[in-house]
Amino acid sequence: MESNSKIFRYDRIAKQLETSILDDILKAGEKLPSVRLLSKQQNVSPSTIFKAYYQLEAKGLIEARPKSGYYVRFRYEERPAPIKKTTSQPNITSIDTSQIILELEELQNSETIVRLSSSIPSVKLLPLAKLNKSVAEALRSDKNLLLKYPHPQGNEELRRIIAQQLLNWGGNFRPEDLVITAGCMEALNISLMILTKPGDVIAIDQLTYFSIHQAVERLGLKAVAIPVTDDGLDIDFLKKAIVKYPIKASLFVTNFHNPTGICLPDQKKKELVELMTEKQIPIIEDDIYGELYFGKNRPSTCKFYDKEGWVLYCSSLSKTIAPGFRIGYCQPGRFIEQFAHQKRILSLSTSSLPQAALLRFFQKGRYNFHLRKLRTALHTQALLYSQCILEYFPKDVYFRMPEGGFNFWIEFPEKFDGYQLFRAAKDQQISIAPGQIFSVEPDFKHCIRLSFAEPLTKEIEESIKRLGQLAKDFLKET
Amino acid sequence: MESNSKIFRYDRIAKQLETSILDDILKAGEKLPSVRLLSKQQNVSPSTIFKAYYQLEAKGLIEARPKSGYYVRFRYEERPAPIKKTTSQPNITSIDTSQIILELEELQNSETIVRLSSSIPSVKLLPLAKLNKSVAEALRSDKNLLLKYPHPQGNEELRRIIAQQLLNWGGNFRPEDLVITAGCMEALNISLMILTKPGDVIAIDQLTYFSIHQAVERLGLKAVAIPVTDDGLDIDFLKKAIVKYPIKASLFVTNFHNPTGICLPDQKKKELVELMTEKQIPIIEDDIYGELYFGKNRPSTCKFYDKEGWVLYCSSLSKTIAPGFRIGYCQPGRFIEQFAHQKRILSLSTSSLPQAALLRFFQKGRYNFHLRKLRTALHTQALLYSQCILEYFPKDVYFRMPEGGFNFWIEFPEKFDGYQLFRAAKDQQISIAPGQIFSVEPDFKHCIRLSFAEPLTKEIEESIKRLGQLAKDFLKET
Repeated sequence: MESNSKIFRYDRIAKQLETSILDDILKAGEKLPSVRLLSKQQNVSPSTIFKAYYQLEAKGLIEARPKSGYYVRFRYEERPAPIKKTTSQPNITSIDTSQIILELEELQNSETIVRLSSSIPSVKLLPLAKLNKSVAEALRSDKNLLLKYPHPQGNEELRRIIAQQLLNWGGNFRPEDLVITAGCMEALNISLMILTKPGDVIAIDQLTYFSIHQAVERLGLKAVAIPVTDDGLDIDFLKKAIVKYPIKASLFVTNFHNPTGICLPDQKKKELVELMTEKQIPIIEDDIYGELYFGKNRPSTCKFYDKEGWVLYCSSLSKTIAPGFRIGYCQPGRFIEQFAHQKRILSLSTSSLPQAALLRFFQKGRYNFHLRKLRTALHTQALLYSQCILEYFPKDVYFRMPEGGFNFWIEFPEKFDGYQLFRAAKDQQISIAPGQIFSVEPDFKHCIRLSFAEPLTKEIEESIKRLGQLAKDFLKET
Repeated sequence: MESNSKIFRYDRIAKQLETSILDDILKAGEKLPSVRLLSKQQNVSPSTIFKAYYQLEAKGLIEARPKSGYYVRFRYEERPAPIKKTTSQPNITSIDTSQIILELEELQNSETIVRLSSSIPSVKLLPLAKLNKSVAEALRSDKNLLLKYPHPQGNEELRRIIAQQLLNWGGNFRPEDLVITAGCMEALNISLMILTKPGDVIAIDQLTYFSIHQAVERLGLKAVAIPVTDDGLDIDFLKKAIVKYPIKASLFVTNFHNPTGICLPDQKKKELVELMTEKQIPIIEDDIYGELYFGKNRPSTCKFYDKEGWVLYCSSLSKTIAPGFRIGYCQPGRFIEQFAHQKRILSLSTSSLPQAALLRFFQKGRYNFHLRKLRTALHTQALLYSQCILEYFPKDVYFRMPEGGFNFWIEFPEKFDGYQLFRAAKDQQISIAPGQIFSVEPDFKHCIRLSFAEPLTKEIEESIKRLGQLAKDFLKET
């Protein structure tokens, strides 16, 4: 039958290609023949080739890159397994805010550096002209509104538009449920301030953004580190920790976790919220990377499963439009009054001008248009960078292909020292983030975070090559 | 002799006028004849009249109003003396953040209110067009600089320009000595955060801005209230407090104190700094009103006398240009590293856009031009409002003529209740600030703060008249 024979044909073609890939004839990162070329070669219709490619894509063997074609994916099983951490009991660790962070920050401020360490979008990917236009429009329309103290919870129209944006993942809020903050960091700090007092114990990701460690330390809190595996947060471990310590609050990055890039699966988000609701322990959810997904759908949030208001949902516009504007927001659930009060005490309100500009940017429909472009660009960059890492880095490193965000988390063999690589790279005017600064435990010194926030250039490719060579040299030495 | 006869003449004219004033023939608030008119009437040269007026001015009997002429001053001795507080021993008071503050804030957000309660400049006095221009220029020149995270200490050029501005009172700083913050409140909060831990005791003004009380309370601190007399802070009382309690830090508004309007005399500033330096107790100096002086010279600061870096000098641009922009700054003396670190942890950095706009405003020389105009306008408003208060308020109220800032602090007889007046005024769509909210002690419920931030209109004059009638009615009742 015609239809059977068609199935046979695309199935046959897919099988052939699969064999070539598994036998390493087609190597990870290599481009497959174009649909047109292969349909000519095999004398079948292009749609037959498409079907074959879809089948291989569904199996995870190849992947489409925007405006480029199909490529052989690198397969996890080819790479060494991640190093299993031996920690099995929750422990309180005092956090050491290291000299390394200062050194990294100094390096980041250098103008001449090749920046592979920053977890914010490249200026090249940001819509400067349209933002300028939005600022000009805001000045024309809001006039003297800009001069007065804004509402302590922030510009009401901006809160309304952010509430609309949160419908993306099913968040259903009113403007009065939200508070605009000076970036996500202020939202996290305020959350911690209202939920804890010095000496309290909180649960945090085992690996996390170093400023979160510093905030926890400055507030005099003790932290229990909960492991983050390839499958997201280790909830069984968290349960043990809750039994062992009087945990007052928790703070987790739930989507495209910094630095690992891991997403907490939605089912686990539900489980986490149910657990914490039962225990009446607030979850401070940091969803700063949630909009930067490379797949078809935005991942969900803990807040989505939050029936009783125990989740304080924090995010910002720093990772998507304008880091320098410092505009973040929080939906603090049942803690809205305390949160709004603390915000007012801390800084009265958030600056009127960037709020008005971003409001205008949203109102003109510029945000979602920009987000789509940004996601495509970042996805492409992730794929291109991964090829470079595969080509130039030692063969025995482990890393996952990120499904969103800006970062690769690269694990070297256990004897490796990420800080040593950081220092050597610094001498060559390249900045990376050594694993040490993301952990409250010394377990991650063999790792680095490498960011693909900048579009790949010849210079960056050359820098990754040099990093790879440095790493190989260190591994030979040790 | 010609010169003797001249002395005689202006002296004689001054004496005549003095008698008229003391005999209430010329009443407080009334305008004196113009120099030209009087010189004709008395058949002397205008310079003779000027000399007579200068003599009366030096005696505090009359005052010049910008672009208007000479007026009879109201004399303190005519008014009842301020009520002497009986507190003679320092006590720790727990601060009650009252429902009244919420009520006031709600009222402040109303669009239809006659606002006699806000301690920020009227929008009518702010240079909106020039600020708009500055924003547009900043966008053109700084381009993608605006998108990146700003330096954690703030825009370096803006810090340089603020350092230049501080030369006004002899402050001699480098950009790296300063940190830009989200308004003065963030600067005060950060200072308290780095200097104290919960349970610590700090010294503060007996009367002060209520958000300072709330910040102190939220940080779990205990406060010793130091009396503010007509002569500024009671330093002997502070000395007793230091003996009695382990004071970890202090926070004082040193110029045109909110709510009383009192300036700490420069000699006392010196004394205060010497005392605290000897005791190694940091002074958080809030100089937010310092630029708004009505006299010839800007008052000095504690920071000016600070040789060893124990003063954390906090101020902002909220009271002079753009409250809504939320741009403040701090020169934290010996605590610069801790301060900059805490700022980074709290909110990474201050928003780039308002910083760039204000930088441009400064660079174009617009700031000092605007400040001169603003000071003249506020001085005139203070004089006009004082006439209304004298005319419409009960005769037995006490208030000082402010020498800067935005506020009158009005003391009614002791049985009076400022909150009662607040409620009655609210019903008539007038907002004032009741004395209760400025004190950690119940001693000031008979006071109100009345702000002259808005240019006097018929509607405002009518409102002051109604306030006066309400106050008279209350006093009759009680």
